[in-house]
Amino acid sequence: MGMIGGGKDAFIGAVHRLAANMDGLIELVAGALSVNPETAIESGKILFLDEERTYLNYEDMLKKESELPEDKRIDFVTIVTPNFAHFAPAMLALDYGFNVVIEKPITLTLEEAKALKQKVDETGLTLCLTHTYSGYPMVKQARQMVKDGTLGKIRKIMVEYPQGWLSTLSEREGNAQAAWRTDPKKSGKSGSMGDIGTHAAQLAEYISGLQISKICADLNIVVEGRQIDDDGNVLLKFDNGANGVLIATQIAAGEENALKIKIYGEKGGLEWHQMEPNTLIVKWQTEPAQIYRAGNGYLSTAASHNTRTPGGHPEGYLEAFANIYRNFTLTVSAKLNGETPSAEMLDFPNVNDGIRGMAFIENAVTSSQSSEKWLDFKI
Amino acid sequence: MGMIGGGKDAFIGAVHRLAANMDGLIELVAGALSVNPETAIESGKILFLDEERTYLNYEDMLKKESELPEDKRIDFVTIVTPNFAHFAPAMLALDYGFNVVIEKPITLTLEEAKALKQKVDETGLTLCLTHTYSGYPMVKQARQMVKDGTLGKIRKIMVEYPQGWLSTLSEREGNAQAAWRTDPKKSGKSGSMGDIGTHAAQLAEYISGLQISKICADLNIVVEGRQIDDDGNVLLKFDNGANGVLIATQIAAGEENALKIKIYGEKGGLEWHQMEPNTLIVKWQTEPAQIYRAGNGYLSTAASHNTRTPGGHPEGYLEAFANIYRNFTLTVSAKLNGETPSAEMLDFPNVNDGIRGMAFIENAVTSSQSSEKWLDFKI
Amino acid sequence: MGMIGGGKDAFIGAVHRLAANMDGLIELVAGALSVNPETAIESGKILFLDEERTYLNYEDMLKKESELPEDKRIDFVTIVTPNFAHFAPAMLALDYGFNVVIEKPITLTLEEAKALKQKVDETGLTLCLTHTYSGYPMVKQARQMVKDGTLGKIRKIMVEYPQGWLSTLSEREGNAQAAWRTDPKKSGKSGSMGDIGTHAAQLAEYISGLQISKICADLNIVVEGRQIDDDGNVLLKFDNGANGVLIATQIAAGEENALKIKIYGEKGGLEWHQMEPNTLIVKWQTEPAQIYRAGNGYLSTAASHNTRTPGGHPEGYLEAFANIYRNFTLTVSAKLNGETPSAEMLDFPNVNDGIRGMAFIENAVTSSQSSEKWLDFKI
Amino acid sequence: MGMIGGGKDAFIGAVHRLAANMDGLIELVAGALSVNPETAIESGKILFLDEERTYLNYEDMLKKESELPEDKRIDFVTIVTPNFAHFAPAMLALDYGFNVVIEKPITLTLEEAKALKQKVDETGLTLCLTHTYSGYPMVKQARQMVKDGTLGKIRKIMVEYPQGWLSTLSEREGNAQAAWRTDPKKSGKSGSMGDIGTHAAQLAEYISGLQISKICADLNIVVEGRQIDDDGNVLLKFDNGANGVLIATQIAAGEENALKIKIYGEKGGLEWHQMEPNTLIVKWQTEPAQIYRAGNGYLSTAASHNTRTPGGHPEGYLEAFANIYRNFTLTVSAKLNGETPSAEMLDFPNVNDGIRGMAFIENAVTSSQSSEKWLDFKI
Repeated sequence: MGMIGGGKDAFIGAVHRLAANMDGLIELVAGALSVNPETAIESGKILFLDEERTYLNYEDMLKKESELPEDKRIDFVTIVTPNFAHFAPAMLALDYGFNVVIEKPITLTLEEAKALKQKVDETGLTLCLTHTYSGYPMVKQARQMVKDGTLGKIRKIMVEYPQGWLSTLSEREGNAQAAWRTDPKKSGKSGSMGDIGTHAAQLAEYISGLQISKICADLNIVVEGRQIDDDGNVLLKFDNGANGVLIATQIAAGEENALKIKIYGEKGGLEWHQMEPNTLIVKWQTEPAQIYRAGNGYLSTAASHNTRTPGGHPEGYLEAFANIYRNFTLTVSAKLNGETPSAEMLDFPNVNDGIRGMAFIENAVTSSQSSEKWLDFKI
Repeated sequence: MGMIGGGKDAFIGAVHRLAANMDGLIELVAGALSVNPETAIESGKILFLDEERTYLNYEDMLKKESELPEDKRIDFVTIVTPNFAHFAPAMLALDYGFNVVIEKPITLTLEEAKALKQKVDETGLTLCLTHTYSGYPMVKQARQMVKDGTLGKIRKIMVEYPQGWLSTLSEREGNAQAAWRTDPKKSGKSGSMGDIGTHAAQLAEYISGLQISKICADLNIVVEGRQIDDDGNVLLKFDNGANGVLIATQIAAGEENALKIKIYGEKGGLEWHQMEPNTLIVKWQTEPAQIYRAGNGYLSTAASHNTRTPGGHPEGYLEAFANIYRNFTLTVSAKLNGETPSAEMLDFPNVNDGIRGMAFIENAVTSSQSSEKWLDFKI
Repeated sequence: MGMIGGGKDAFIGAVHRLAANMDGLIELVAGALSVNPETAIESGKILFLDEERTYLNYEDMLKKESELPEDKRIDFVTIVTPNFAHFAPAMLALDYGFNVVIEKPITLTLEEAKALKQKVDETGLTLCLTHTYSGYPMVKQARQMVKDGTLGKIRKIMVEYPQGWLSTLSEREGNAQAAWRTDPKKSGKSGSMGDIGTHAAQLAEYISGLQISKICADLNIVVEGRQIDDDGNVLLKFDNGANGVLIATQIAAGEENALKIKIYGEKGGLEWHQMEPNTLIVKWQTEPAQIYRAGNGYLSTAASHNTRTPGGHPEGYLEAFANIYRNFTLTVSAKLNGETPSAEMLDFPNVNDGIRGMAFIENAVTSSQSSEKWLDFKI
Repeated sequence: MGMIGGGKDAFIGAVHRLAANMDGLIELVAGALSVNPETAIESGKILFLDEERTYLNYEDMLKKESELPEDKRIDFVTIVTPNFAHFAPAMLALDYGFNVVIEKPITLTLEEAKALKQKVDETGLTLCLTHTYSGYPMVKQARQMVKDGTLGKIRKIMVEYPQGWLSTLSEREGNAQAAWRTDPKKSGKSGSMGDIGTHAAQLAEYISGLQISKICADLNIVVEGRQIDDDGNVLLKFDNGANGVLIATQIAAGEENALKIKIYGEKGGLEWHQMEPNTLIVKWQTEPAQIYRAGNGYLSTAASHNTRTPGGHPEGYLEAFANIYRNFTLTVSAKLNGETPSAEMLDFPNVNDGIRGMAFIENAVTSSQSSEKWLDFKI
């Protein structure tokens, strides 16, 4: 694995490394870790990279790695730069024949996402988008139960992702994370929807198997002085007629990453909380609700394939992240070996999720600016 | 107390009696308990009413009670009939000089609510509307903390009230409750908003001290064959600029009465769940969240005035209901004694809440039928 | 109902009145509310008692009430005095032919309890002991499930009742409750076991249907200066061979009334928390755990008979208390009418629970003073 | 790192590898993975070991690795064999100059543990014992708060570890884990205390900073046909006079790994649940309880040093495990570099925890067999 971005003080780069390390399948051997040469070199040392594989820019890395013998060069690159710097390295990496992992959202614009998909299709390479929350085993259990018709036809989805970290203008108080995420040039058209709303939307579509078909958005700049929305409420319609509500806010003072989803069908409902991810509540109208717990024998293959510890030994965010890396890696390995990856291997977000995510942002922004209530969800 | 409606098999009438009994301040002595004479008489017997005060219709009751000596006649009537049968007895009771308790929603239409308010103003009598949830001590604590500025300026309100009991067409399966509540002639223009959305809206306004100023509603008939909405999602703006989301649904299979509210201000947030009502979570951005618990010495007078047991001995729905009855009764007594009721005594929903509730229903229905996104909240 | 004790500032007397009021079946009409004549008279006024039925001592009350015509006199007395003042009025009341409700623990000593039982047996009257926690509907559901063999043979019981209110020497800081409860002359041989350990023991035996057969107790005076134990840990053996642990402590700073019980059988386990009493968790070894909730149609008659509100409208401590009063009242009424009370009516703690409770205290104290590990549980 | 035991189907070996991988500080390069040569070789392949470092027994591995140049050989060995096979390889590894990680309990007997400590002292090498639960950040926060006197003098500790996996005779149904753990020759004198009771005891001592001084144990064979206890209840006294209860059971049907601890001091209490490890509840007698959450800025260095993700992105069991590995590795590195390890680095269980754990088992077994109530805790 070669990493683009993710220098020594970056948040998400470190998370990607922890996740990639976990199963012993992936080794970080090359990096263009920072646009700042000193940071790049220092970060390389900290991460035990060979000096000659500590690159000062991604173009260099991709070129030189591609010139190495096949069994020496990296198998894929991971792009963990701010949103505006996803597209170019991803395109180039694919051109050089490398598979790609990208932190979400996939690109800065929907147009870029479409171009990227075209490139993926042309090259036949594998692209993985780290919508982490879909990597949790109980999310996979939920998806499987919906797929199996356990709840009957889905009627309603309620998903919320409240955070509090942008309750103040922390971008002006030296918080580097906040600085780029609230800068539309680096982050994109929407703050709350780009950063966390896309996660919520992807989760809703992933579990339900449905697609958003109409949208009515109210995006807000709550903290004065900010350039892009830090809060949003969205009404939804799904392609089977179900309705939904999606709330993503970064000004919910006191909240950490309180992503929650509730899905109701004709026969029952599901509830999952990201902050207690090993539990899935399944509710019935005339029977007691059930507490499905990760690591138990009664779970689906979809869930158990993505679990490392037995019931009662909690797994968390890094394990969910690692599931995405593992499935991606297994897919890439299978393809390299000329095998067809199994459904379990292919169970990671890909370029299509990326396009839907960018479309979600664009549609939400357009709807929010419109006085019309409902907007058809366009890609 | 004289009761109108609430015969032997009625749900909410029994709840009113339990709540009224609790503190030993109120005695049921008269009733027009059913439009069915046999049921009225049988119900009177079960409830130990004197035969001569077991009336066959409310007109009779109000007239005859008004003719009794002052110290024998009822002090107030409680109206627990279906929505369409609230207005007429309430008006007549006020005309006869009786104070009135009404089950929510106050009337069938906003027009009726306005006429009722005029009558209340003219007569100087007291009208109480049983928005039960505002009777919980921790709701009162929440309201007090907002009022005291503990959270700073309020920015966002998320309130949801999912129920599952109308997941099927139970109105056609002999469920009498469901039958009248899904019949627009008896229930009003909206099902989900009339029955539970008004509770959610009242709770949001009660705790926050804010008023809804704009609305964008999506009301749905989810279960085929039903005449009025059984589900709705509403975006809100409040008069201080805060935004909000209100979800009220009766088709959330597996849910009981899972009313939850989250309110966020500049400094922190509050969270309260009706099904675990003795706990109020107060969240802070840079300090640990706190668990406020009913019955403790650190609570506000507003909370402790409405508590009967010490911390750890849970109170519930009936106690919240009883708080409304007790405060109403204390207010009526104070007035009868020529005293000015205290703020604690006056802390029960009244005809103004009734008008706002009916306006909420009307505005939600109008908005839902409109293709415009935002509608000014009109009364 | 006539009340002995429970003057205006008493805690548990007020609770008894709230509970007795709730269902409209019981009316407080007489009282010997305090040994202080002024308090007795003032309390009588506050409670709307007739002056002539506001007595200055219980002997007077019992005598005069017994001389009233049958349809005027009280049907039963409620004794809510401190422990040392339970026995004498209970005996006298039975002698006068009145049924009796007593706050737990039943008497000051085991000997008294046995004498009382003999009197109950002789008179054929009904005695009810208010072990409140066995009045909760989900406790009754738990008992029924054990009885039905749902869990298989019971193997282990863990019950704990931590409180924090005696963390300091509050008995010397003007806390009247604390003063008598920490005074062995008024409270009995054990503080923690007498006040709350008996509740825990009764709950364990009630749900499991088992009886304690051996005991190994460690009672402690944790707060220096106190005369009787404020803390205790007890190992148990039950008559079917199951083992158990009972913890009752009043020095667990920060705890309210955190009574919890877990019972495990061959096939599964039960968990119930008093502070969230409407939920019963049922655990299975190879299936998801289930959340049984009060007020639902799938519950046993034992549970639903003791429920007033539908699922999701929480009932609490007062309702549990009221269940005991209601069942007692229904039993007394049935007997008065020459009918045989049903199993549901008879489902309230009686003099036998009282004897077992006093034996529990005595055995715990004896064991705690012994260097032998196991003591046979003696009555 | 070289691993002894932990072949392809072993449970705890895989956990050790995941934990060791996570931070990218440790690489598995050698292994004596199974006593079965075929399993050893196949497991080596699966784990990408070089063929020449895939050893068929640990003696071989230790000898040959010690002959490699310093910069090539392993820095430490990890022993993940069943309990009876801990001592010999640990002694030999130390003799060869390797640092050692051992899965708990440290040895089969207290005698072995003492001998091992002597060897550690003689060699000056580092030994780490994987009492995983003390690796959780909120456990470290709890320990720090106790140390800082936040709760005042500790008065009472309640710790319980219920599991259900030995509810049936699964050792006879082909469960290899169950087979050796219920075999006293492989597992030691006690099943429940050896396997999980030692965890509970270590956790209690670790957080409280106290030491068990007296013990009164009741160990039980609940499932008929088993050779060693599968359940136990233990009363405790600590060296400062505090009392405690420790429950460890493997027959609590329906429980996963429900380790919970509550610690009470003069001023307040702490509560932590292993299955929701990122939350620490801190309770106060006259203020609202607080919810301390992992990853927040208000935590102690002890907690934040052992955290990888920001608040709201849950970490779990593997991260707790990885904390132990990381701190051990940092200590070993510091020592190799001639530096003094910091307090944070040294914060992992060591040979002294191992001795106390073995003493706990021995004392519990002795006490359980005795008719005396209290036994002095002897080492």
